[in-house]
Amino acid sequence: MSSQKPLLVAVVGVGLVGSEFISQLLSIPSPYSPFKLISLTSSKRTLTLNPTSPPAPQLKSEWKSLLSSSSLPADLQSLTQRLTTLVSQDKERVILVDNTSSDAVAALYPTWLAQGINVVTPNKKAYSGDVQLWKDILETSSRQGGGRFLNESTVGAGLPVISTLKELLGTGDKIIKIEGVFSGTMSYIFNEFSTGNEDGPAFSAVVSVAREKGYTEPHPADDLNGFDVARKLTILSRIISSFPTSSSLPTLQSFASVKTASLIPPELEGIPTGDEFLARLPAHDAQFAKLREDASKEGKVLRFVGVVDVQGGEVRAGLEKYPTTHPFATSLGGSDNIIMFHTERYSPRPLIVQGAGAGAAVTAMGVLGDLLKLV
Amino acid sequence: MSSQKPLLVAVVGVGLVGSEFISQLLSIPSPYSPFKLISLTSSKRTLTLNPTSPPAPQLKSEWKSLLSSSSLPADLQSLTQRLTTLVSQDKERVILVDNTSSDAVAALYPTWLAQGINVVTPNKKAYSGDVQLWKDILETSSRQGGGRFLNESTVGAGLPVISTLKELLGTGDKIIKIEGVFSGTMSYIFNEFSTGNEDGPAFSAVVSVAREKGYTEPHPADDLNGFDVARKLTILSRIISSFPTSSSLPTLQSFASVKTASLIPPELEGIPTGDEFLARLPAHDAQFAKLREDASKEGKVLRFVGVVDVQGGEVRAGLEKYPTTHPFATSLGGSDNIIMFHTERYSPRPLIVQGAGAGAAVTAMGVLGDLLKLV
Repeated sequence: MSSQKPLLVAVVGVGLVGSEFISQLLSIPSPYSPFKLISLTSSKRTLTLNPTSPPAPQLKSEWKSLLSSSSLPADLQSLTQRLTTLVSQDKERVILVDNTSSDAVAALYPTWLAQGINVVTPNKKAYSGDVQLWKDILETSSRQGGGRFLNESTVGAGLPVISTLKELLGTGDKIIKIEGVFSGTMSYIFNEFSTGNEDGPAFSAVVSVAREKGYTEPHPADDLNGFDVARKLTILSRIISSFPTSSSLPTLQSFASVKTASLIPPELEGIPTGDEFLARLPAHDAQFAKLREDASKEGKVLRFVGVVDVQGGEVRAGLEKYPTTHPFATSLGGSDNIIMFHTERYSPRPLIVQGAGAGAAVTAMGVLGDLLKLV
Repeated sequence: MSSQKPLLVAVVGVGLVGSEFISQLLSIPSPYSPFKLISLTSSKRTLTLNPTSPPAPQLKSEWKSLLSSSSLPADLQSLTQRLTTLVSQDKERVILVDNTSSDAVAALYPTWLAQGINVVTPNKKAYSGDVQLWKDILETSSRQGGGRFLNESTVGAGLPVISTLKELLGTGDKIIKIEGVFSGTMSYIFNEFSTGNEDGPAFSAVVSVAREKGYTEPHPADDLNGFDVARKLTILSRIISSFPTSSSLPTLQSFASVKTASLIPPELEGIPTGDEFLARLPAHDAQFAKLREDASKEGKVLRFVGVVDVQGGEVRAGLEKYPTTHPFATSLGGSDNIIMFHTERYSPRPLIVQGAGAGAAVTAMGVLGDLLKLV
């Protein structure tokens, strides 16, 4: 690889995932790295790197201070112009890595892709938001000379979920159903809350601990509403729909079209702070305890799952019951994700992928893995 | 894709996997297919396809009769010349798909790769055989202008095992240990034989049923010797060793260097036929029953596993005991494979891939998946 022209990488977003991604990228031993970092953009500033910039090992320890002392403001329009010039005039291969969770950045993907700039991102917004943005991404990336769009780490972080789905579809398998625990937060909460016994800790207590451990958003309702799962299901559904041989799935106008059974008690909707929400959650513990008890009497556990039921033409997220012998009950631990692909070929027993589905290191790995696919 | 020049595909080997592969390849809807089939070679004949050949849907039903009525003998030397001309003079992109299990075909990979011909194969021989052939493949495929070598389906058939390992390594993760049930045959046998109870069916009876169902080779000793697992472990170990940042693993001279604990009773070594072997196996049922009983007393089951212990610098295959709560006990069924990647990032809980690890449809899918990576 080292003898070929490097792929030029522009990074937008330098938060937890972004920082880890930059660290992993700069850790590839220089003679083997097929990549060259050409810019870093935070919410405030841009750092432009050129051939006279420090070599990768040095840059790895210095990029933060170089970025914070840069006098160039963050300006996505200038960045777009620079990257377009590199692609169209200088025939360079360019990858834009969006490590933000910004709708505004996602809205620019079609512009970039149309210019031949490849886009790689863990940002779920584009592929799970308004249907028109998704269609624009499909259209611009399939044009002659369009850039490629890769977003493996939007579902299951570093786990091979989207690549596996694309391979199943690309080789002519028929997806019957995808079923899984897609949220690390929900996984942790229900692995702790529902173990098959009638008793156990109070729901609010489990959510509080999860928050203390940093497994939930600052406001736990942002996890309990199920939107994160609905977004991931939308991404998977749209990938299925984008293959020519598919399918009876409904067109999702956005992730809000997914049938999502929120866990937020109606009385607690719209509470502005996480602290107040948690203070009032114990009043609803009895409801959750009743659900656990009912499941236990059937020899089952509760899990918050997402289902893309291709055969049934339905996409849904919510609490479901599984026998205590089911992999969702026996095999899960911590904040693991587990995804089962039921297909024509993988039938009656599914193809299963399992492991940590959140965290900066494994998410950044999914992003860097997408970059490696472009080499 | 359709607007780009197609990748030319030459297939050697038209047995079970080969036939299924050809069927899957020709099932990609024509306007979307990035591939063009240019030749089929069986052990006896070659069929050369050119622009006037039937279109894919028709070819799908006719290739067998066309091949069997072809007057061209199978001749790998002529094939090599034709492909070399296509690559070097006509600047075509060519993929040689080896669907045989032949050592003789595997020995040609370095020649093809050096000419810029990509090689895709489910044939384990090359990467698990003599160390020099493996080194030659590495060397020729990493040359400027060399072809790429992909063999995803040699381990776990269509499951994403090798691609996941390469992504972990390529993004800088450290492999601590890979542990798994790598043989569909061994999986079936021990899922049936050892369920955690002290009693159960006789070992010889389970092996007989497995053979009747077509899960074993005609001679069951070819499964029970553990060589299939040793070959897969060799392939994974060598992939780890081929990454620059690795590792304390010993260099395996061939799959025979793996510490493999054969299940063939010493008295039954070298028995020429499967029938005689099965007739004499019941005399050894008591030994296997004792192992099962001992495991059961510890609350464990028996599984024939393969381990690449990077930290411990050891590669081994053999019967090991696992608690009845372990995924190898709870989650496995049928002839599933399960592979656990324990890594620096996936720790303490591993990344797990599970599903059918044998069979023509899923093996061919792994091969076609590799072709799609070359698009």
